Amino acid sequence: MNKKPSLYTSLSPALLHLYDISNSIVVVIDILRATSTITAALNNGAKEVIPVDSVSRCIEIGKQIDGITAGERDGKIAEGLSYGNSPFEYPESFIKGKTLVLTTTNGTKLLHMALDKGAKEIVIGAFTNLSSVCNHLIAMKKNVMLACAAWKDRVNLEDTLFAGAVVSRIKEHFDISCDSSHMAESLYNTGKADLYGFLKKNEASHYHRLTGFGLEKDIRYCLTEDGANVLPVYINGRLIVE
Amino acid sequence: MNKKPSLYTSLSPALLHLYDISNSIVVVIDILRATSTITAALNNGAKEVIPVDSVSRCIEIGKQIDGITAGERDGKIAEGLSYGNSPFEYPESFIKGKTLVLTTTNGTKLLHMALDKGAKEIVIGAFTNLSSVCNHLIAMKKNVMLACAAWKDRVNLEDTLFAGAVVSRIKEHFDISCDSSHMAESLYNTGKADLYGFLKKNEASHYHRLTGFGLEKDIRYCLTEDGANVLPVYINGRLIVE
Repeated sequence: MNKKPSLYTSLSPALLHLYDISNSIVVVIDILRATSTITAALNNGAKEVIPVDSVSRCIEIGKQIDGITAGERDGKIAEGLSYGNSPFEYPESFIKGKTLVLTTTNGTKLLHMALDKGAKEIVIGAFTNLSSVCNHLIAMKKNVMLACAAWKDRVNLEDTLFAGAVVSRIKEHFDISCDSSHMAESLYNTGKADLYGFLKKNEASHYHRLTGFGLEKDIRYCLTEDGANVLPVYINGRLIVE
Repeated sequence: MNKKPSLYTSLSPALLHLYDISNSIVVVIDILRATSTITAALNNGAKEVIPVDSVSRCIEIGKQIDGITAGERDGKIAEGLSYGNSPFEYPESFIKGKTLVLTTTNGTKLLHMALDKGAKEIVIGAFTNLSSVCNHLIAMKKNVMLACAAWKDRVNLEDTLFAGAVVSRIKEHFDISCDSSHMAESLYNTGKADLYGFLKKNEASHYHRLTGFGLEKDIRYCLTEDGANVLPVYINGRLIVE
């Protein structure tokens, strides 16, 4: 019997350095809302999404390539950008064939860390593309790192729950010697019947932040499985669906 | 109504820098087995426990003060030391009135980090002294940081479960805007009916490491509430019961 590939979960970018990911597929997870919005835009036909870490860089690249600049700060469209972080802003009628330049502080930082550490492949994970991610990981038979973007390096509930959802679906195919992965799965099993209610009950900090901005609809979408079931892969600074 | 003090959980020493603990009581948590053994020794009448981060330092201090040197590496008593990390090695008949010099890599590192960051007070937490810790935290009405020692900075299940046990007992008294704390509580609620079984079921890495050394009895002790219900406080390099 062949040895199974390994699977680890990093609950925060501040923990990623503890793991050797040089031979791993890294799944970048930023459920509320970056990775959910990326899958939505690409599922609706966006040509590509370019993740950047600052508003100024977003404006610069947006001008260079005539892309759609998007990003928020404190729940509002950032000054100088044209659109926000909501998956509902990117229907097919608007985004098809276009390039989205998206500022995502936590997610972009994590992407660059994974690159710097020599990840074999980087893909985007969200509940909206859960099946695509799981099917890909099973098919590839490579080591996996589920990398949560967290919130300013603080562990958050929604990213952890998604890691748990992946673990619960694919664990038979992997060797999982990682308490974070098992903890994530246990939390997911506890909350899966009503993820929205679970976030609310556990007073998830991001839930509070976003509902304060009236974004319940966004949160519900971001917690719904397979609503935008594509697999964004990071290649040369761009997220595309191959 | 007065504002409640805050409570945070840091799941790994690698996350502690994210929090301002300068006005907080820090609870150092290293369930398997450092903080459990420390409470056992002090409950059995040890004069004090001096935590050190290396075997050489343990030997040096042990000679200076005629203390009992203790510590393990890979499940065996470390070369040059006299005793191990098991709480059962320190019954009253042996330890009463003596000084225990204990090497604990993860726990000592965390203690020093908390000191460097100006913690207001540092206490030792374990299931064995759960009630003492909770009663103290409620009585003090100060901000609290539940600081998990983890395993070489990787998040572990047993320390997280203890943080969750504390949260579940004292949450009404604190303002908890911290997903890690809520996650820990949820995990504890899931596992509390049988913590040993929960570690086993979730393949906790430390559970594997220790059962491989035949230490099931130690693990069961370390998961039992209030078996050594004292409150060790860190003062001038020493853990004592005031």
